[in-house]
Amino acid sequence: MGIDPGLTRCGVGVVEGRPGAPGTMIAVGVIRTDPKAPLADRLLALDDGLRAFLEDHQPEAVAVERVFSQHNVASVIGTAQASGIALLAGARLGLPTATYTPSEAKAAICGNGAADKQQVTTMITRILRLKEAPKPADAADALAIAVCHLWRGGMKARLAAAAGNGGPR
Amino acid sequence: MGIDPGLTRCGVGVVEGRPGAPGTMIAVGVIRTDPKAPLADRLLALDDGLRAFLEDHQPEAVAVERVFSQHNVASVIGTAQASGIALLAGARLGLPTATYTPSEAKAAICGNGAADKQQVTTMITRILRLKEAPKPADAADALAIAVCHLWRGGMKARLAAAAGNGGPR
Repeated sequence: MGIDPGLTRCGVGVVEGRPGAPGTMIAVGVIRTDPKAPLADRLLALDDGLRAFLEDHQPEAVAVERVFSQHNVASVIGTAQASGIALLAGARLGLPTATYTPSEAKAAICGNGAADKQQVTTMITRILRLKEAPKPADAADALAIAVCHLWRGGMKARLAAAAGNGGPR
Repeated sequence: MGIDPGLTRCGVGVVEGRPGAPGTMIAVGVIRTDPKAPLADRLLALDDGLRAFLEDHQPEAVAVERVFSQHNVASVIGTAQASGIALLAGARLGLPTATYTPSEAKAAICGNGAADKQQVTTMITRILRLKEAPKPADAADALAIAVCHLWRGGMKARLAAAAGNGGPR
């Protein structure tokens, strides 16, 4: 399961597959919370949404986009809070978790760490052979993180398991 | 219950009382997580620690220091993640939550929003008539947030209840 963390829109996507193969989309969605609601209520709504998605799709691992520190600080705080809730939701279920920077995800999907949002959407639509592009961009980004983990994390997980340290983070 | 959120050290303190009276310390502590541990494990350890503290002391409300956006961005991310976990822990139990900026807490406790850490520790020790100063500073800050909420939030809660909007956030 890939998560593009956000407080107003949090992209979620589940992909099945293995490194070196395109993978199949199992589910995609966006969890929205009301920007006018109190912060604690928004965090609770996000946590409820993530738990329901995890419950429905039973992923084997959770990958979360790492908060990008070059955003403006106010938006970084909300995104960081959402990413904390997302990682906690995975860890609470005992699932292995991983984080990837936006550049790592773009490089994995587009072969270019500086690809723009449209390229990510185009490539993830092609890779997963979807009939239409996932919308909004947060949903496409969540699938990109999931595929990135499938391709990169699968390898890291096997190396980590061989090294006995419990997998990627 | 007051919380000074942090990933390495999260201050927690419970105070009983009412606006206009000094209040009594019920409990104080610091939840620590291993800076070398994977992020998801740290968030889980923090959540476990907060849940245990909430369970042990059954506070009526949770007040969390608002993340101060003028820190450096890297430290803001960890603090924001911890604050999200803290607010979620309170909201999950159905408790009213509130946030206060460091300046608001300092102004409430010291009468000066620009007071330094030592002044906050000195004043909170005096207000709660403690035999010794709470250590580390995170613990003193958590008590300061708790007293700030008791004094300011209590009033806000009554006004909000009168206005029918469910209390302070």
